[in-house]
Amino acid sequence: MTGDLFWPGDERAGDLFGAEGFLVALTGVEEAWLNALVSAGIAPPAAAAQLSDLVGPADVEPIALAAEAGGNPVIALVKILRERLGERNPTAASWLHQGLTSQDVVDTALIRCSFEVLDRLRREFTGQVGALRALSDTHRGTLMAGRTLTQFAVPITFGLKAAVWLQGILDAAETARDVRHGLRSQFGGAAGTMAATVELADRTDRAESAGWRDPARRAENVIAEASRRLGLATAPPWHTSRAPITRIGDALVGCNDAWGRLATDVITLSRPEIAEVSEPTGAGRGTSSTMPQKRNPILSTLIRRSAWTAPMLGAQLHLAAAEAGDERPAGAWHTEWATLRTLARTTVVAASQTTELLVGLQVDPLRMFTTLEAASPGILAERLKPGPIGAELDDPSNDAEDNRLDPRSYLGTSELTIDATLARAEKFLLLEG
Amino acid sequence: MTGDLFWPGDERAGDLFGAEGFLVALTGVEEAWLNALVSAGIAPPAAAAQLSDLVGPADVEPIALAAEAGGNPVIALVKILRERLGERNPTAASWLHQGLTSQDVVDTALIRCSFEVLDRLRREFTGQVGALRALSDTHRGTLMAGRTLTQFAVPITFGLKAAVWLQGILDAAETARDVRHGLRSQFGGAAGTMAATVELADRTDRAESAGWRDPARRAENVIAEASRRLGLATAPPWHTSRAPITRIGDALVGCNDAWGRLATDVITLSRPEIAEVSEPTGAGRGTSSTMPQKRNPILSTLIRRSAWTAPMLGAQLHLAAAEAGDERPAGAWHTEWATLRTLARTTVVAASQTTELLVGLQVDPLRMFTTLEAASPGILAERLKPGPIGAELDDPSNDAEDNRLDPRSYLGTSELTIDATLARAEKFLLLEG
Amino acid sequence: MTGDLFWPGDERAGDLFGAEGFLVALTGVEEAWLNALVSAGIAPPAAAAQLSDLVGPADVEPIALAAEAGGNPVIALVKILRERLGERNPTAASWLHQGLTSQDVVDTALIRCSFEVLDRLRREFTGQVGALRALSDTHRGTLMAGRTLTQFAVPITFGLKAAVWLQGILDAAETARDVRHGLRSQFGGAAGTMAATVELADRTDRAESAGWRDPARRAENVIAEASRRLGLATAPPWHTSRAPITRIGDALVGCNDAWGRLATDVITLSRPEIAEVSEPTGAGRGTSSTMPQKRNPILSTLIRRSAWTAPMLGAQLHLAAAEAGDERPAGAWHTEWATLRTLARTTVVAASQTTELLVGLQVDPLRMFTTLEAASPGILAERLKPGPIGAELDDPSNDAEDNRLDPRSYLGTSELTIDATLARAEKFLLLEG
Amino acid sequence: MTGDLFWPGDERAGDLFGAEGFLVALTGVEEAWLNALVSAGIAPPAAAAQLSDLVGPADVEPIALAAEAGGNPVIALVKILRERLGERNPTAASWLHQGLTSQDVVDTALIRCSFEVLDRLRREFTGQVGALRALSDTHRGTLMAGRTLTQFAVPITFGLKAAVWLQGILDAAETARDVRHGLRSQFGGAAGTMAATVELADRTDRAESAGWRDPARRAENVIAEASRRLGLATAPPWHTSRAPITRIGDALVGCNDAWGRLATDVITLSRPEIAEVSEPTGAGRGTSSTMPQKRNPILSTLIRRSAWTAPMLGAQLHLAAAEAGDERPAGAWHTEWATLRTLARTTVVAASQTTELLVGLQVDPLRMFTTLEAASPGILAERLKPGPIGAELDDPSNDAEDNRLDPRSYLGTSELTIDATLARAEKFLLLEG
Repeated sequence: MTGDLFWPGDERAGDLFGAEGFLVALTGVEEAWLNALVSAGIAPPAAAAQLSDLVGPADVEPIALAAEAGGNPVIALVKILRERLGERNPTAASWLHQGLTSQDVVDTALIRCSFEVLDRLRREFTGQVGALRALSDTHRGTLMAGRTLTQFAVPITFGLKAAVWLQGILDAAETARDVRHGLRSQFGGAAGTMAATVELADRTDRAESAGWRDPARRAENVIAEASRRLGLATAPPWHTSRAPITRIGDALVGCNDAWGRLATDVITLSRPEIAEVSEPTGAGRGTSSTMPQKRNPILSTLIRRSAWTAPMLGAQLHLAAAEAGDERPAGAWHTEWATLRTLARTTVVAASQTTELLVGLQVDPLRMFTTLEAASPGILAERLKPGPIGAELDDPSNDAEDNRLDPRSYLGTSELTIDATLARAEKFLLLEG
Repeated sequence: MTGDLFWPGDERAGDLFGAEGFLVALTGVEEAWLNALVSAGIAPPAAAAQLSDLVGPADVEPIALAAEAGGNPVIALVKILRERLGERNPTAASWLHQGLTSQDVVDTALIRCSFEVLDRLRREFTGQVGALRALSDTHRGTLMAGRTLTQFAVPITFGLKAAVWLQGILDAAETARDVRHGLRSQFGGAAGTMAATVELADRTDRAESAGWRDPARRAENVIAEASRRLGLATAPPWHTSRAPITRIGDALVGCNDAWGRLATDVITLSRPEIAEVSEPTGAGRGTSSTMPQKRNPILSTLIRRSAWTAPMLGAQLHLAAAEAGDERPAGAWHTEWATLRTLARTTVVAASQTTELLVGLQVDPLRMFTTLEAASPGILAERLKPGPIGAELDDPSNDAEDNRLDPRSYLGTSELTIDATLARAEKFLLLEG
Repeated sequence: MTGDLFWPGDERAGDLFGAEGFLVALTGVEEAWLNALVSAGIAPPAAAAQLSDLVGPADVEPIALAAEAGGNPVIALVKILRERLGERNPTAASWLHQGLTSQDVVDTALIRCSFEVLDRLRREFTGQVGALRALSDTHRGTLMAGRTLTQFAVPITFGLKAAVWLQGILDAAETARDVRHGLRSQFGGAAGTMAATVELADRTDRAESAGWRDPARRAENVIAEASRRLGLATAPPWHTSRAPITRIGDALVGCNDAWGRLATDVITLSRPEIAEVSEPTGAGRGTSSTMPQKRNPILSTLIRRSAWTAPMLGAQLHLAAAEAGDERPAGAWHTEWATLRTLARTTVVAASQTTELLVGLQVDPLRMFTTLEAASPGILAERLKPGPIGAELDDPSNDAEDNRLDPRSYLGTSELTIDATLARAEKFLLLEG
Repeated sequence: MTGDLFWPGDERAGDLFGAEGFLVALTGVEEAWLNALVSAGIAPPAAAAQLSDLVGPADVEPIALAAEAGGNPVIALVKILRERLGERNPTAASWLHQGLTSQDVVDTALIRCSFEVLDRLRREFTGQVGALRALSDTHRGTLMAGRTLTQFAVPITFGLKAAVWLQGILDAAETARDVRHGLRSQFGGAAGTMAATVELADRTDRAESAGWRDPARRAENVIAEASRRLGLATAPPWHTSRAPITRIGDALVGCNDAWGRLATDVITLSRPEIAEVSEPTGAGRGTSSTMPQKRNPILSTLIRRSAWTAPMLGAQLHLAAAEAGDERPAGAWHTEWATLRTLARTTVVAASQTTELLVGLQVDPLRMFTTLEAASPGILAERLKPGPIGAELDDPSNDAEDNRLDPRSYLGTSELTIDATLARAEKFLLLEG
């Protein structure tokens, strides 16, 4: 099923962190582990196997239905994999899932799905940074009214506004990048001791004539190899130390903050009484069911929707982290999967909508200037405020020649801010683009 | 698709507040309105039509995919309905959706879906109240240690504990019942004025020879009739006054509070070191992927999962309410649908799990008594605390005969509380059972 | 200390639910209980005492500092009260706190503070309803543009908008009233059994010659009498069934929803490009530290501040409810006090700001009309939409005479909605005003 | 006022992020800016001044009361400072606050207060890491039952559990350290353009004979100098790009996650039926108002309290970030101050309580071993599970000699995990201790 009646635009996330994608990721973890057992010499060469073709979309529903009994989908998945694998490679089937616990498989799969999401975000950010770089540079001289607490403040340029949006996006994108680089696998076994794997390694050691007797190191080699196959870094077990999950959550929420903040501006500036920017048009985009004149700012509307819901989802992950008691928790962990799924998918949707919004944003410099003129001279009252600051500076001859009513001369460091932001964007694109 | 890999047990909610159910509800609102226009004499008799057979599960995906352009699924739904209806009844097709705005249809459909959820909860509550009534009555004499801040406090009975659980459930169930009885339709037209409907009514008035000239009243009749067909009360438009939504949300969260609170106790009391209660057993229930001895308290685990996530979803609905600006808001409203869907479905799942838990809960009175004995005499230290309270009461002859170390004589009002709670439960079942 | 640097306007809440007010309430609960013990004949007449003059503002700090050891302020308070009371009435001192547990005292004091807050809200609501009734009635003919998703939709009147605000306020106010009427005391003793009180009553029974042997009923009489003295209803102990707290929370959040929603409109409509309403002026109100022309909509700003924070505080109370395990919980309960305090105080502040905003709101009908004219004829496009609905109605002779471009004739049920809302307001004021 | 009746333990935060501390920080920002104007040659040397002695605790209340009119405390503070400074240095008074906007002062003061909080956390973390290092090392051989989903899983050691707690703390501490190092000042002027400062610099340029004509660079020098004086890094204005705030919030929430997670374990393990650890004792610590036998785990209780409330406060900051529209927002920003204050203070309190808990934690190895024995052989069932994995390994001669019932031989990589964690702790202490 693609699309969600309750969350228009959901299809933009495709199958990222969807049910099928999760099933693929879970299977991929089992496969990486199985083959890492072989690589480490614990399982015999005959146990090597590919699993990815053993399950498909049709398995999602039966596995989901079987998941409640054990509280997660891994038991049912392993049962199916073992049956099907057993038909063509009984040795592999007998080694499947040896040494793992359900949480290892679910957590590492969540990380894999998160990697794909963060990688998609990387591409969206590249597009957004490119679009904003152009907007900021193009409009560095486009005067408009600066507004604070909704009222006219002092003049700015639209280029500066775009640069501020860009800073927010770079803050978010850099954090997302760091999180992507730091993703860790989770392999701990039943209670974080890897005891079963070490025992298997011990059997191998005994069986080997040469007798390298360090089964714990050998178990760590399995973890390293399985992680390598999955493209992830290793770490000590984090069954109950959930920073690897909350960091993803915080980064995704941070993305929504940046997009929500600019969508808030677009919503305001595209009000018909202001009309300084407008959303890109498209077939049927922004229409009403009854009012033919309507052109609703629907991208910004949907982006804000995401920004209003992301913070609570991020908080939910923190709450789970705080409750992660014992060696593996009862309930706190179980809240994370759907929460992270929803947060990840809605973030991707908002990312895509933001890219589209920024690439096609229509700016009306004339209207901006008209508003600014109408707001004058009040909008320059800060500058005009009466009274000397220091007598020595208050030489009337200076004032005589100056241009206190020209907003162009009251833009302060705007150009410097734009330049610094564009340079930062350039660097980001070099690294990530 | 039934079941959710990310939320085991989701299938317990069936199609309540699911995509197909929502499509049915949306279509039902259009149908009720169309036929109410006919009943009120605004649309001609030939415009009467049934719509429910015009759409089906296969339409969910295309409508969902088309929903982003307008920001909600109604435009796409009306387009499909009008096309299909037009083939067999062009008059009806021309009257379809006349006078409505998208939000009328979505909101009233949300209310319809909520009604079905609340009705399901009514049945679950009936089962829970029945189970707890039996537990409380059966165990009114079953002594156990009362625990406060995790430590032994004074003796209680398991019957009292069950009565306290029952009070929480009755609090939640009564609120849910009141909300169910107060559900209101939403019909306001483009900006809450019903102007289009009144204009249609005006044409009718002009066309009628007798000339009843009160088109606004006639429009209100349409609202009343459409609401009657949907089994809902009427109300002035609440496009931006969202108490009808937040009340549902608060009630659903309140249910989760009550269940989460008792699941927390079951989780604690089924720890192996305590082992005073245990969850009902079932095929594969509570098993582990590697540890054959395990019997995890999986129902309580999943119930707590829901209780930990519900509060944030309820808060999300309040946040939307606070942001509901203009005559219909841009974004706040759009956050409500998926939030309410998720809250409703997870609540139904937790409801069903709680019923199963309570109906099958296994209680071990002997173990409870053993714990209580082991906790004595410390657990009676409140009673034994030194010093006179009032000299006139401190007659040693009283103490000589008394039974200060018998917990059975230090249960206070427990029986009265049980009786009062059972009476309240009786009344609830009479009204709702 | 009055005022809060971090929450401007805090002083509007005075000492409602402040530290001193809480200390008074805690002491009041001890006093009501002590004297109820006397009234029930359990404690001797000599134990009757007033406690309110025994503690004062200077005690807040030492009690607060002593509170961590036991986890709540009651132990320290009782110690102080007992010492000071002992100097003038040792009998009363010996009976103080007999039968209670800390949670009884804290919870009942929270309810008392909540009562005062809800009573203050009643008065604020009365003012708000009065102001909105006047605005709605005065402006029932004041035309303005209806806006949906930020864009022009169809005409409305400002009177209708005010009526919609009023509906939201009545929804909130009626719920707050119901909650106020349902406030319950909490008396349960160490683990909800009232065992200590029943034992005290038993001693009395034995001492009394006549020998009324029902100490549990006598204990219930104490509860009833103590509650009566505090102006509260009784209920079975709810140490771990927290609906009495969450209902208060939900009601307070609901108030903020209603105010936030209207403040959102005021913020929008007072943007300089729209300028259809403006906030009441006052000394220094809305000024800037550097821009003399500024007149920021500061009341609406601060009201929205509250509306954005209230939902999470309400959610926090639900989370505590879901975690309220054992006979009294370790931590969940402890989160409630400050949360409810902050929610209550910020709600009172927002209430007061909203009253001031509504009483002094400045409306500019001419500007509204100008905007509406500028928005025409697009804003009437719904009405003008092409094509027949039903051929029999589409008599050109009707169209010829009609006034399709006059917004005054396209207001639908606006008057009826205003009338219905004013009637509802009237009824509310009769009951609460 | 020290201590908070509603939040026992609040005094542990001293005046960190308190009202007086905030006033000091606000004044410090004005002072740094004023003197930086002098350093840059914009203000005359005579304008240099110290401000810190101009205000004191007695000013908190009047400034707080005056703050509502402008919406923040800066206008009132500047008025007071200017009056008092004017008496002894009118030049300085005339230059005070020149070029700044209220938000610059408030935001930079929030950052300064956050620095002090993060610095205090650094010291707490040092203590916690030291305590856990000792616990982990001392108990690396202390056998205990591993528990998953509350049930016995496989054996672990208490040293491993302590190492896992330590990992969580290091995750949090390293993030907090990074955030501390990245704190940025906020200087943007009325709408983020620094126009007023640049204009002042321009006057200076004109006045100087040599004529260095780059006022924007000169303004940036002022920012750099003011930031240097405050010990903060500079950044482009972030009035509406709130990552600098949300990062602090996320880091603080992450700390609470780590502490809450270990407090959850302590709460469980100190249940009387388990009794494997207990909290440090102290005068009155953990007592009850009526039950003399009680020893409540009050530190863990209060730590969890914080962990349950922090996530929502963090979410609140993200919500504000998403709403930060225009050049400075109306309401979103205003929610941040009290939210960050509460989050910061409660985090410090929990930090201090956690240090105390860990330094004094009492561990009962004998009880742990007794539980483990009672849980055997079930707790070794994973190991004992029937059936061959690979026939070649299943040599009965291996099994004959092995020690499958000795939990000591089934600890897997526990030692390696402990060693790796201790090494990481060592490195952390070297950098931060």
